Amino acid sequence: MNKQMPRLEVCLSPALLHLYDTEGAAVVIIDVFRATSTIAAALYNNARAVIPVASIEECIELGNSIENSVTAGERNGHIVEGLQYGNSPSEYTRDFISGRTLVLTTTNGTRLLHMVKGADSIVTGSFLNLSAVCDFLLNSNKNVLLACAAWKDRFNLEDTLFAGAVVNRLKGSFDINCDSARAANALFENMGSRRPIELLQDSSHYRRLAAYGLEKDMEYCATIDLHPVVPILQGQELIIHQPNQ
Amino acid sequence: MNKQMPRLEVCLSPALLHLYDTEGAAVVIIDVFRATSTIAAALYNNARAVIPVASIEECIELGNSIENSVTAGERNGHIVEGLQYGNSPSEYTRDFISGRTLVLTTTNGTRLLHMVKGADSIVTGSFLNLSAVCDFLLNSNKNVLLACAAWKDRFNLEDTLFAGAVVNRLKGSFDINCDSARAANALFENMGSRRPIELLQDSSHYRRLAAYGLEKDMEYCATIDLHPVVPILQGQELIIHQPNQ
Repeated sequence: MNKQMPRLEVCLSPALLHLYDTEGAAVVIIDVFRATSTIAAALYNNARAVIPVASIEECIELGNSIENSVTAGERNGHIVEGLQYGNSPSEYTRDFISGRTLVLTTTNGTRLLHMVKGADSIVTGSFLNLSAVCDFLLNSNKNVLLACAAWKDRFNLEDTLFAGAVVNRLKGSFDINCDSARAANALFENMGSRRPIELLQDSSHYRRLAAYGLEKDMEYCATIDLHPVVPILQGQELIIHQPNQ
Repeated sequence: MNKQMPRLEVCLSPALLHLYDTEGAAVVIIDVFRATSTIAAALYNNARAVIPVASIEECIELGNSIENSVTAGERNGHIVEGLQYGNSPSEYTRDFISGRTLVLTTTNGTRLLHMVKGADSIVTGSFLNLSAVCDFLLNSNKNVLLACAAWKDRFNLEDTLFAGAVVNRLKGSFDINCDSARAANALFENMGSRRPIELLQDSSHYRRLAAYGLEKDMEYCATIDLHPVVPILQGQELIIHQPNQ
């Protein structure tokens, strides 16, 4: 163990976040199905910014006050009444979202993002931007917390598998003395030569969303490196991180 | 998925226990390093009962009021002042503990045990009694919650690996729609042909206890089926479950 290396930890649920010290750390918010996948898609396709908000009211209000904005959010697999679009990454093509501000309300991911205190940076991660996030963390040289959004505080497979993919790539460059990180890495290793979606098809969230006919969405969310950008929080907005700034 | 099968879930930390319904369930308390291993050892070696208590004061008080009792507990790897013995399963040989009542204070495991509400039964599990616990759960035909004691609410590898071993054996007989159970099983599967101790040597708790010279204790705790008994809570006491009663 090299004492000079920064620390990397994994938090498996927002209900455990208080156990981790995020002061000065690079924190990755992970909500694979589907908030952080949609954020990566929208920014990659040139959205001006994504504003994550917790409530539907706030989403409508911000949508009304921001020019050229799009309000979006789902509850139970359907677009919320009063909002314009859903939470599917494939909706946010370049033709549609370029130059616009996406005001997005989600439950698990947004709540977690707002819970993190004192971080040096807050970015969002998903399979769609796996390598970009790993490169960002390697370059940041900060302690890292990979924070899984989970589902109503319950551990979930898709966020943990993504955390495991990051741990697996970064383990030589960080001091990892965190059992959650070890278990996430084991989950990733156990996947072997299978694609992420093959593992995730037997997960609680997949079953829940498949009941709404969202299988294609989840296949999209499980695609590695389709949208190589790093969404980073600046004030209340997520924008693309520019490496040389 | 057979709707007739009872449900099996895994809770990875006491901080997540409120998310699970334990009403009428068989709950397995898991604190591999070392409370539930010591409990299995003491009862297998014919202790009359084990009384798990949260505080040192309560331990001393009960020890004074119960005839032929032994008080035990450690904090930071040392026997607590005022108590007689430690938290090492190898201390509780038949010669020593037979017929006596062990009053044991531990932090993580005891606290979790007292948090469980409305269960049909509360038993304790460890590698030392893996098969006995699995047989008990198969015979009980109740919903099952495998509850990991963790370490100060932090996810830990040893309790989750044990939960994974149980899931792996029972998955054909229970309805498992719980991502924690899936991940625990993947952790167990990823162990492959290695012995549990080989995996656990790279865990936070192993490192912590090894710093106190407790490597042999942990090797003991990782031995499968050395003490095939099922400790079950009756009132405030853990005693051996008798299958045909």
